[in-house]
Amino acid sequence: MRLSQYFLPTLKEEPKEAEMASHKLLLRAGLIRPLAAGIYTYLPLGWRVLKKIEQIVREEMDAIGGQELHMPIAHPAELWEETGRLADFGPQLVHFKDRAAREFVLGPTHEEVITDLARREIRSYRQLPLMLYQIQTKFRDEPRPRGGLIRVREFTMKDGYSFHESFEDLDRYYPKVYQAYLNIFRRCGLEPVPVEADPGLMGGTGSHEFMLPNESGEDTFVQCGQCDYAANLAAAKAERESYDQEEELPLEEVATPDCWSIAAVADFLGIPQWKTAKAVFYKAGEELVFAVIRGDLEVNEAKLARVLGRADFRPATEAEIIEFGAVPGYASPIGLSDPRLRVIVDESIPKVRNLVVGANKEGYHLRNVNFPRDFRAEVADIALVREGDRCPKCGGPLEIRRAIELGHIFKLGTKYSEALGATFLDRGGEARPFVMGCYGIGLGRLMAAVIEAHHDEKGIIWPAAIAPFQVIILVLNSADPAQTELGERLYEGLSREFEVLYDDREESAGFKFNDADLIGIPVQVIVGSQGLSTGEIEVRRRAGGNRRIELASGLERVVAAIREELQRGA
Amino acid sequence: MRLSQYFLPTLKEEPKEAEMASHKLLLRAGLIRPLAAGIYTYLPLGWRVLKKIEQIVREEMDAIGGQELHMPIAHPAELWEETGRLADFGPQLVHFKDRAAREFVLGPTHEEVITDLARREIRSYRQLPLMLYQIQTKFRDEPRPRGGLIRVREFTMKDGYSFHESFEDLDRYYPKVYQAYLNIFRRCGLEPVPVEADPGLMGGTGSHEFMLPNESGEDTFVQCGQCDYAANLAAAKAERESYDQEEELPLEEVATPDCWSIAAVADFLGIPQWKTAKAVFYKAGEELVFAVIRGDLEVNEAKLARVLGRADFRPATEAEIIEFGAVPGYASPIGLSDPRLRVIVDESIPKVRNLVVGANKEGYHLRNVNFPRDFRAEVADIALVREGDRCPKCGGPLEIRRAIELGHIFKLGTKYSEALGATFLDRGGEARPFVMGCYGIGLGRLMAAVIEAHHDEKGIIWPAAIAPFQVIILVLNSADPAQTELGERLYEGLSREFEVLYDDREESAGFKFNDADLIGIPVQVIVGSQGLSTGEIEVRRRAGGNRRIELASGLERVVAAIREELQRGA
Repeated sequence: MRLSQYFLPTLKEEPKEAEMASHKLLLRAGLIRPLAAGIYTYLPLGWRVLKKIEQIVREEMDAIGGQELHMPIAHPAELWEETGRLADFGPQLVHFKDRAAREFVLGPTHEEVITDLARREIRSYRQLPLMLYQIQTKFRDEPRPRGGLIRVREFTMKDGYSFHESFEDLDRYYPKVYQAYLNIFRRCGLEPVPVEADPGLMGGTGSHEFMLPNESGEDTFVQCGQCDYAANLAAAKAERESYDQEEELPLEEVATPDCWSIAAVADFLGIPQWKTAKAVFYKAGEELVFAVIRGDLEVNEAKLARVLGRADFRPATEAEIIEFGAVPGYASPIGLSDPRLRVIVDESIPKVRNLVVGANKEGYHLRNVNFPRDFRAEVADIALVREGDRCPKCGGPLEIRRAIELGHIFKLGTKYSEALGATFLDRGGEARPFVMGCYGIGLGRLMAAVIEAHHDEKGIIWPAAIAPFQVIILVLNSADPAQTELGERLYEGLSREFEVLYDDREESAGFKFNDADLIGIPVQVIVGSQGLSTGEIEVRRRAGGNRRIELASGLERVVAAIREELQRGA
Repeated sequence: MRLSQYFLPTLKEEPKEAEMASHKLLLRAGLIRPLAAGIYTYLPLGWRVLKKIEQIVREEMDAIGGQELHMPIAHPAELWEETGRLADFGPQLVHFKDRAAREFVLGPTHEEVITDLARREIRSYRQLPLMLYQIQTKFRDEPRPRGGLIRVREFTMKDGYSFHESFEDLDRYYPKVYQAYLNIFRRCGLEPVPVEADPGLMGGTGSHEFMLPNESGEDTFVQCGQCDYAANLAAAKAERESYDQEEELPLEEVATPDCWSIAAVADFLGIPQWKTAKAVFYKAGEELVFAVIRGDLEVNEAKLARVLGRADFRPATEAEIIEFGAVPGYASPIGLSDPRLRVIVDESIPKVRNLVVGANKEGYHLRNVNFPRDFRAEVADIALVREGDRCPKCGGPLEIRRAIELGHIFKLGTKYSEALGATFLDRGGEARPFVMGCYGIGLGRLMAAVIEAHHDEKGIIWPAAIAPFQVIILVLNSADPAQTELGERLYEGLSREFEVLYDDREESAGFKFNDADLIGIPVQVIVGSQGLSTGEIEVRRRAGGNRRIELASGLERVVAAIREELQRGA
């Protein structure tokens, strides 16, 4: 491709709206342009990269038996009613009515549509296991699109869905997808950390996210400094200290005037914060949820959602707390009896003896509260893991890391097949719901993540496997016929072997170098007056390092040199 | 691919909802499944065909300098307001509001988005000409989706847009696209008729449609039986007879009691219908359009729309006709003077002398009406061409043919660039609007059209270039280890050379033959007991013809035979 004819609007200036490096470079290198918030056009150079990523994804999915199909973006809303997600998805889900007033949604994901297909078309265990996937456009009305292609509203996603006759078969297949995902990311030049994830409201029995550590990433995960333990915040566990050596002392009320916070209570009584328990209230439908957690810890609402089996809760108001007989600031789980009250105690609480807890009476706390001696409640892990907490596997120190989530795989189990009545006849001739897995990668985000990991102050440095072109030829002085002639000859010859971009524009050498470094083509072939006089051309790797090749030695030498440079990962 | 593991739900029965052959076969051969009216899922076999068509389209677009990009499906409604099409498109256009109550539409086509991109990014004539295209999902809320993939609501379209510095440059480029389109269709095994088309409300100065003659097609075009003239109905012209030899006689009123129709008037007065003029009334906004046309012809509303510059008109009611002073059934263009009245006279009218026209008085007509002697009005071609009319090029007889429209190319001119203020600096440094062309192909419809043209009573016969697999291996008796072993060996060997589907299912030979014929893989390699005993296997072309090849002669002979059969067009 001749650059003089290529639609490549690069920018010299840093775009003001962009903060992340990838966002700036996607705009500056002429890869994308915004049409609306979180909605982008891929320009020709960007689309070439996306198609290469798409092809890698396709090859790896096919290698584990995936069969590509293509489902629509417009889904009848009734399907989403059947699984209950029409409500669950909330405002992320775009609704529209067709001319016959039938309600549709724009697909943010395709569990409903693929399970509907399975219930109509798959009859027997003989047709299982089956992995179906697509590379298709999704729409999610995100509240805060950001970071260029990191969080968008319209995007290309590879979403795969596997169908199995049993959980055991899903457990056998799932590691293959896990490995295929690692292959995809590695072929794109990334080395993500696979972390245990919370399946959350997708339902299911196991899940992993692939996290690329990145300071500007909007996700967070927990990683052990000593062993291979890694989990996202919603799934992360910490080994909590056990303080149960003390003897249980008798309960007593103690005056704590004006102690409205845990810090104030601990300070007033001269005790560490971990020796207090705090109350956190949520309203979930008609219920008041009373979460009891060690004073120095925080509630992880994603974990709480899993315990409650619902995500539609919110912090309770003072009035709601009072309505249930509790005293805000001095609330106690002891002595409350409203049947609509649900007390959930974090796992840290039973490990501490003689806690200080509110007395449900303004200005007073209870001392020497012991669980379960003094009150009963369900116990669950609802605590947010903190930097420095102890690894549940090896006890080492946990670190909290920011990251970009590259992909997510789920063992869905029978959540969707049961909701939609999607069954097959098993080996015994009985109808059973499909056991399912689902697996997603956002292709645009992956492209942005590659830029995050592969750039310098001059621009992008594409890994060869997904570079939009492999070689760029720079003719430094287009006014010099000798240079142009050689440029044309190289362009013609190299195009037979590589994808070549040929900078034949009437621009200065500096301008051309800047653009070439910005757009990050792995190998630059430089034709300048110096080379012509010495009888050499320069083959330069964008990532660093260059060599000179005798012109007289022929095109094959140039081709071989480029091939070597590309293999060095460029 | 092993058929035992492939997701290929074929149907024995004819699906009741389908009328067109392609619709029946798309469903029966397991290529697509409906999700809602006019909204389909492509199953793996169908998606393979679509990807092959996509690749052919891509290659031909790239060959004429096209650069592929990718634009969003969600468009801000303001862009569509700028061109006025937010209203013009009517209920075909799906609207939705995002969570911030900003209005969006689902893109039915991308003139607005690409012209917006051009106005932001293309500055100079030096960047022109430029051809940008995408292969992307469109949504049009068609009132009557039908025929499977023939008329759908959600579909994959190749839409290309070219930008030029002048009409001359567009005129130079346009024939290249025309030829690329012919190449695409021919590579897919079709030979469409390119017809002159009416650019209609897309605007512009020239347009062609590529029509595949088909009895079940929903489009119609006009073709000369003698020369190469062909046009769609909206653009077709006919040479109208000239009856102007008579002398103009004096106007006179004649009683025509109860003659409410042209047939009745002609009968009552004993004259041929072509010697009458009829009045057809339309309401277009505040205007009443009074179309005057020869009694034996009909108004072509598409042509009328072009004359009026708007498509939002409808037949007028009796009350509306009366309001403008005309008498329904006996209306006359003579003597009406309302300034909101617009009289349009078909070109056939000035060619007839002494016409009979309504007298604007119930029970009376005027005889010997002559245009323009007796009334003035704009003259335009607004007549529908009829079977047997005379060709405007050679005078030969015109035929009306039903067809499937495969593609449409337009010279848009400056309609969109002017509306959006998209300009570039020309060679003289002046800002000028881009001259544009646009070019579309619906990929799913193309796939259906190929099936319409290539099938028999047993099923589809795919042209080799877009066949989902090139070869299918049939093991006739899966219980015979000798056959299975040979099947496996052939599968392994042939897969190195071709895309092979291997029917390893435990089904009867008849069942397998039926499926193989139904799904239409071009070459069938048959492994049966007969062949094993004679030491031969059978290589059969789906389109007809077979040969036997000695097993002992080795795999290369089989490969060569398959290659030959594929080259015969399968």
